Amino acid sequence: MKRKVVYPGSFDPVTYGHLDIIKRASSIFDEVIVAVAHNLDKQPFFSVEERVAMLEKSVKSIKNVTVDDFRGLAVDYVKKRGIRVIIRGLRMISDFEYEFQMALTNRKLDDSIETIFMMPSEEYSYVSSKLIKEASALGANLRDFVPSHVEKELIKRIGR
Amino acid sequence: MKRKVVYPGSFDPVTYGHLDIIKRASSIFDEVIVAVAHNLDKQPFFSVEERVAMLEKSVKSIKNVTVDDFRGLAVDYVKKRGIRVIIRGLRMISDFEYEFQMALTNRKLDDSIETIFMMPSEEYSYVSSKLIKEASALGANLRDFVPSHVEKELIKRIGR
Amino acid sequence: MKRKVVYPGSFDPVTYGHLDIIKRASSIFDEVIVAVAHNLDKQPFFSVEERVAMLEKSVKSIKNVTVDDFRGLAVDYVKKRGIRVIIRGLRMISDFEYEFQMALTNRKLDDSIETIFMMPSEEYSYVSSKLIKEASALGANLRDFVPSHVEKELIKRIGR
Amino acid sequence: MKRKVVYPGSFDPVTYGHLDIIKRASSIFDEVIVAVAHNLDKQPFFSVEERVAMLEKSVKSIKNVTVDDFRGLAVDYVKKRGIRVIIRGLRMISDFEYEFQMALTNRKLDDSIETIFMMPSEEYSYVSSKLIKEASALGANLRDFVPSHVEKELIKRIGR
Amino acid sequence: MKRKVVYPGSFDPVTYGHLDIIKRASSIFDEVIVAVAHNLDKQPFFSVEERVAMLEKSVKSIKNVTVDDFRGLAVDYVKKRGIRVIIRGLRMISDFEYEFQMALTNRKLDDSIETIFMMPSEEYSYVSSKLIKEASALGANLRDFVPSHVEKELIKRIGR
Amino acid sequence: MKRKVVYPGSFDPVTYGHLDIIKRASSIFDEVIVAVAHNLDKQPFFSVEERVAMLEKSVKSIKNVTVDDFRGLAVDYVKKRGIRVIIRGLRMISDFEYEFQMALTNRKLDDSIETIFMMPSEEYSYVSSKLIKEASALGANLRDFVPSHVEKELIKRIGR
Repeated sequence: MKRKVVYPGSFDPVTYGHLDIIKRASSIFDEVIVAVAHNLDKQPFFSVEERVAMLEKSVKSIKNVTVDDFRGLAVDYVKKRGIRVIIRGLRMISDFEYEFQMALTNRKLDDSIETIFMMPSEEYSYVSSKLIKEASALGANLRDFVPSHVEKELIKRIGR
Repeated sequence: MKRKVVYPGSFDPVTYGHLDIIKRASSIFDEVIVAVAHNLDKQPFFSVEERVAMLEKSVKSIKNVTVDDFRGLAVDYVKKRGIRVIIRGLRMISDFEYEFQMALTNRKLDDSIETIFMMPSEEYSYVSSKLIKEASALGANLRDFVPSHVEKELIKRIGR
Repeated sequence: MKRKVVYPGSFDPVTYGHLDIIKRASSIFDEVIVAVAHNLDKQPFFSVEERVAMLEKSVKSIKNVTVDDFRGLAVDYVKKRGIRVIIRGLRMISDFEYEFQMALTNRKLDDSIETIFMMPSEEYSYVSSKLIKEASALGANLRDFVPSHVEKELIKRIGR
Repeated sequence: MKRKVVYPGSFDPVTYGHLDIIKRASSIFDEVIVAVAHNLDKQPFFSVEERVAMLEKSVKSIKNVTVDDFRGLAVDYVKKRGIRVIIRGLRMISDFEYEFQMALTNRKLDDSIETIFMMPSEEYSYVSSKLIKEASALGANLRDFVPSHVEKELIKRIGR
Repeated sequence: MKRKVVYPGSFDPVTYGHLDIIKRASSIFDEVIVAVAHNLDKQPFFSVEERVAMLEKSVKSIKNVTVDDFRGLAVDYVKKRGIRVIIRGLRMISDFEYEFQMALTNRKLDDSIETIFMMPSEEYSYVSSKLIKEASALGANLRDFVPSHVEKELIKRIGR
Repeated sequence: MKRKVVYPGSFDPVTYGHLDIIKRASSIFDEVIVAVAHNLDKQPFFSVEERVAMLEKSVKSIKNVTVDDFRGLAVDYVKKRGIRVIIRGLRMISDFEYEFQMALTNRKLDDSIETIFMMPSEEYSYVSSKLIKEASALGANLRDFVPSHVEKELIKRIGR
């Protein structure tokens, strides 16, 4: 039986931290589906299409990884795809609390879905999409945080 | 002497986590006043009147609990009512920090008011009004998180 | 009905942090019983008798506070005394975790007993019996951390 | 390809929290090896043989779970068995820090081994072997924390 | 060689907590430059000019402290001024995480800049500009949190 | 005026994490004194002489760093040397709490002494002397955690 997992998130935009988790997951599971959420209540920086495109460009060299998008609850999407495992990265204490709250809520919403957590390299343990957007707007060089094609998109969008 | 306590908050909307704290408080104090704050700076999901109504419906079977609303500082409201004890629920580390910051600020604003903390059942330790509104907007079944009359109001408001 | 609470602990020795909690509790409950635990697995610095004596000397001016000692589980002691509320102080994140673990365990052992938490003055938020014993052994002046009669006992015991 | 994982630990003794993690892991991986560590520096309560026996009794109904013991580093044991994934349970913030420190150290010792984290049911989120031994020594009923055969061994050992 | 440090921040408005850090820094370094950031994405309560003016009034009695403002990244500003050290205050766990994330990001952006952390007096360990603005809007007396000239500006702005 | 700082600790043994802090401190202060504490209550792994020797060997290429040892309170040692600043490294949340507790206690013991905190490279953010001794006893290769001369001493002491 093939072990498939879903890695859901905003990926607005994808960072080296996300890619580190994707690579680690792809090395221990048969298939990894990176699933971009249609955000309801917050205004995303990039559209779902742009976020999916940047992810696809970033993971194209890893064979067992595909990119998708979803509306509604992550647990409903995962179930519809016939998958039972969600993976999430854990970087900091504040992640830990939010992720556990989400995972316990998801478990209550559908107890056949299990969430497992992976740890990025310590090198990326503090990289966040939010910080990257702020630093980009302030003129920072983002070479150490995102792939170069993502940095180009950030600069284009911010209009520096 | 009767031991009265005030349980202030947004209750936007009331959850099973809030109700668990209310029940525990009502079993160890003579009277519990649940006090709904008029939020100044953030747009509430339900009006104060709606939040008070949902609370009253939820606590009507508990004799020593009443519901009220207040404007301004919680310590000023508590003092005006001649009460000396505020109760708050503690669920997670992030609660802990925010609650302690509030409690120390309240103590500085009026050192005759004491804040005490109670712990909800572990079953509700991750339930938050914010998460519930998000999950509701995404189509989740909220039966395990809020009373059914609150779920109906959420669905009506979201217009699913 | 009188509202009695038990404040259980090691009190090895009592600090100004403990006394701050005792005063606050005594101002909002009718009676506070400070209960010194017979430690099973760790070698205490002072005997139960010595710890009780130092506490009694420290609280003698507060009318509604008494000191006692107990063997076995705190919940069993509390129940035997016909009391339903345990109070505990919360100072730091590490306290928070340990205290919640204890409180949830106590609730499972006897769900009629409720634990409530109080916050010491920020001035005592970092004082611990352990730190005081270490600092005392290194020759520190402890005047800001413990009553003078407790400091004398510490110096006598350490034999500086 | 079969997905095997190792769940290393002290299991001194096994709790319902451990068993919850084992069940969850066994439902998403092909084979789970529970590996009891020979503790070097701390005096265990039960011998490795006793801990293995209690685990075997507790998991005998789950087909894809086996129990083993190991000396030395967990990463060396895992590698010797030709496995690439370690699973660990995460319950609290303090777990989180210790577990991440261990996982990062293990990654540095052998970067082909990946550690993934699972979350026990919130019902067991505060159960620890240490707390259980303490509570047992104080006469607590442990029915909600460990299987009955483990409780019997605890009582026998403590000699109540 | 003179040891200069930059203390960057929003200071919207300056609090006794900030002033405590400024005094401590001024006593161990030769020169302290308090640098007010032009916020990009969030609407400040006071303009940069107002924030600088309030700071200057608050620090005028401390000889080796000056106030400045900056646009863009803090590390770029610090470098342009020929300085190598950023100081930041640490009050709570949530500060700790955010500050470390910022410091590690700054280090990656320019590894010649070092961030060091100082601890305010425990008396100010919970004071935040955000809490002060909220409390002010609710009618609180802020005498214990900000200098009186800052309180006057807050009241004028809120229009109580 | 020369800016001297003391970096006190157990250094049992020195790790790359300690050395990272020492290098950072030596680059922003005029003189760094690494001060090895005579531990009172815990049995050290290496004697004070051995710990001092390993430190001296590790820092001999950094001109403005010297190594010393001290008995009693760190604040008393620092004062006796006519210095006003203690530096400490911060790695994790648990460090944060312990370090703040120590720093606030030190401030109360002598308010003319200031403690400042520095952050090691994220690469060393999880390295601890305790973990290294445990891993060494289990046969781990410690090349990434301590200088080779320290690893040799560890192996010699453990007698692998």
